[in-house]
Amino acid sequence: MNVVILGCGRIGSTLARSMSKEKHRVSIIDRKGDAFRRLGPDFGGQMVVGNGIDDAVLKKAGIEKADAFVAVTNGDNTNIMSVQIAKERFHVPKVAARIYDPIRACAYRELGIETICTTIIGAKLMKDLLLGNEWGAAAEYCNFNEDEAEV
Amino acid sequence: MNVVILGCGRIGSTLARSMSKEKHRVSIIDRKGDAFRRLGPDFGGQMVVGNGIDDAVLKKAGIEKADAFVAVTNGDNTNIMSVQIAKERFHVPKVAARIYDPIRACAYRELGIETICTTIIGAKLMKDLLLGNEWGAAAEYCNFNEDEAEV
Repeated sequence: MNVVILGCGRIGSTLARSMSKEKHRVSIIDRKGDAFRRLGPDFGGQMVVGNGIDDAVLKKAGIEKADAFVAVTNGDNTNIMSVQIAKERFHVPKVAARIYDPIRACAYRELGIETICTTIIGAKLMKDLLLGNEWGAAAEYCNFNEDEAEV
Repeated sequence: MNVVILGCGRIGSTLARSMSKEKHRVSIIDRKGDAFRRLGPDFGGQMVVGNGIDDAVLKKAGIEKADAFVAVTNGDNTNIMSVQIAKERFHVPKVAARIYDPIRACAYRELGIETICTTIIGAKLMKDLLLGNEWGAAAEYCNFNEDEAEV
């Protein structure tokens, strides 16, 4: 799979390393070149410094041949804009955005954009932990050993 | 349940509102009073400005009678230190910390401290989304409607 990831923060870099390790072709974009340090020395994908809502930057990262585009910067607006560009202008089949704001995450999902709201997920899991509720399959996202710590 | 929450960021404020709405007694601590704006005007819990690894601040927030303590600041070190203080010094029965660093989250869990690593959760969910894997029960943490957006 050809995947373009926007944002080389914690989630972006973890996802990029994991996908690359499994032989997917990964391009990762960040406004700051320094962010790529999180990928470690063994990362086999492409790194592009630039703004993820800029066509030229997206093209350089291979958006025209991408099977998937994921936006995980710290900015909800950037994430949602870039995902819309990837979907509407470049017709990337699979797009997803991380959104902090639960209300917006919900609204965008209703517009057909896949969103993951780490705020809601974190708060719900904490609450279930406090109240002793069963985690069920969610536990597999939370319980991991050190070997799996890179996803 | 008497719960003390350290950190009034996105997850902390969402959790505090949700627990308070369900009639739990909530105290929330943040170093910056401005952070409490996230709780909205209807929040019925206690707000304490201060450093969450300071005994006096924790006591003011009612740690001595707390059934649970949750640390969700942006700092892994603060979260883990405060959780250890709550557990060892104040004997709070249930403690949990949000940890960004997957390796540390794993190590602390092995020491018996409940941790939620939003980095791993976010990256794993994104990966499953891209690869079309089944979310199972994890979906309930990701799919929510607007009424549930406050958890």
